[in-house]
Amino acid sequence: MPALKLYQWKSSPNSRRIRMFLAEKDVDIPFEPVNLGEGEQRSDWYVAINPRRVVPTLVLEDGTAIGEVPAIMRYLEETFPEPALFGSTAKDRALVTMWERRMELEGFAAVMEGVRNAVPGLKGRALAGTHGYEQIPALAERSKQRVKDFHADLNSRLSKVSFVAGDTFSAADITALVTMDFATSALKLPVPDEANAVRRWYESVSMRPSATA
Amino acid sequence: MPALKLYQWKSSPNSRRIRMFLAEKDVDIPFEPVNLGEGEQRSDWYVAINPRRVVPTLVLEDGTAIGEVPAIMRYLEETFPEPALFGSTAKDRALVTMWERRMELEGFAAVMEGVRNAVPGLKGRALAGTHGYEQIPALAERSKQRVKDFHADLNSRLSKVSFVAGDTFSAADITALVTMDFATSALKLPVPDEANAVRRWYESVSMRPSATA
Repeated sequence: MPALKLYQWKSSPNSRRIRMFLAEKDVDIPFEPVNLGEGEQRSDWYVAINPRRVVPTLVLEDGTAIGEVPAIMRYLEETFPEPALFGSTAKDRALVTMWERRMELEGFAAVMEGVRNAVPGLKGRALAGTHGYEQIPALAERSKQRVKDFHADLNSRLSKVSFVAGDTFSAADITALVTMDFATSALKLPVPDEANAVRRWYESVSMRPSATA
Repeated sequence: MPALKLYQWKSSPNSRRIRMFLAEKDVDIPFEPVNLGEGEQRSDWYVAINPRRVVPTLVLEDGTAIGEVPAIMRYLEETFPEPALFGSTAKDRALVTMWERRMELEGFAAVMEGVRNAVPGLKGRALAGTHGYEQIPALAERSKQRVKDFHADLNSRLSKVSFVAGDTFSAADITALVTMDFATSALKLPVPDEANAVRRWYESVSMRPSATA
C-alpha cells in the first residue's frame, strides 16, 4: 500500500467526507491534525502544503499534495477500487460525480455559507481560501431557505431511489449524510419530520460503521 | 463511436467548457440548443432531461442524462482518452481535478455570482437551480474583488508553471480561459496589464483552435 497521509481536523465536515470514504474502503492511513480552532490552516507549514488553507489534504509518498474533496475521492477510488464508491462503469462514475456534486452545491455549500456568514469567529473570513471577505448577513438568512429546499428536493429523489445516485451506496451518500449532520449541528436544521424518504435513508446510512469516522 | 448529444447554448460559458473539451479531443457530436434567452432551460421537456435546469447536459445513447461540467468531462475523458486532458496517471488525474476545481471555485463561480446578482433579467434567480432566490447587491460588489484576487493568484501560479495544472495543457486551462473571457464580457474585468504571467498564458491558450468552440 502506498504511504499516504491525510491532513485533517476532527470537527471539519469536509475532513469527515474523506474519513468516511476511507472507512468504507477499510483503508487505514495516518491522520495529521490541522487545528482549525487555533487557525493552524493559516500557518506557514500548512500553507506550504495547501495554499488554499483548507482541510483536508491528502499527501502522497512522493510529497504530492492533493486538495479538494472530489480530487481526493477520485485518487482514493483509483488506488483502492474496492468496494467501488463511484460505481463500476464510465457511465456510473459520471452519474455519481454528478450526484455527489449536486449534494455539495445544493446542500453542503448552502450549510457552509450559513455558517461562514454568521459565526462571530469567522468575521472577515466569509469565504474559504486565501483572501478575507466580510460576512454578509443576508447570506446567513438565505442559507436557511436553501437547506429547506435541499431537504425537500432530496426527499423527492429518495422517494424514487434507494440511494442518492440510484440503487447503490456511493460517494454521493457520504456528502449528503455529512451535509445533514452539519446542518443539524451548525444551523439547528435537522431533517424535517415530513421528509419521510430522507428520514428512512438517513436512519439506514447513519447506521453504517463508516458514519462514525 | 457511441451516439452522444450535448444539450447546450452558444453563449453559455459552462457549455463552452464542454465544447472546448470536445474540440481538444477532435470529437464531433450533435449540439442540441437550449435557448437560455427564452428560458428554455425551464421548459418541461428540458427539466425532464436536467431537473437542475442548467446547461450543458450530455445525453448518452441509452438516454442517460449527465449534468454538471466535471461529471461530463470525466465521462468524455474515459470515453475518448486521447489526447488526455486529465493527465495519464491517478496522481495526474487528481491534480487536474484539483486545479480545475480551484479555477471554478475561485474564478468561474466568482464571475457567475457577479452576473447573477446584478443582471436585471436574473432578478429572483440569483442562484442556478430549481428555486428562486433574490439578488443580493453586496454579492455583485464582492465578486469584483474576487475576480481581482483570482487574477493575482493565478499570476503567481503561472509565474512558476506553464499551464494551470503544471507542464501540460489540461481541463484546468479550459475552465480558466472560459472564466477570463466570461469576466471580460460580462463584468468588464479583463486580465489586468500587470498580470504578465497570466497574459502570456492567455495569449497562448487563446490561439488554440479549440478556443473558438
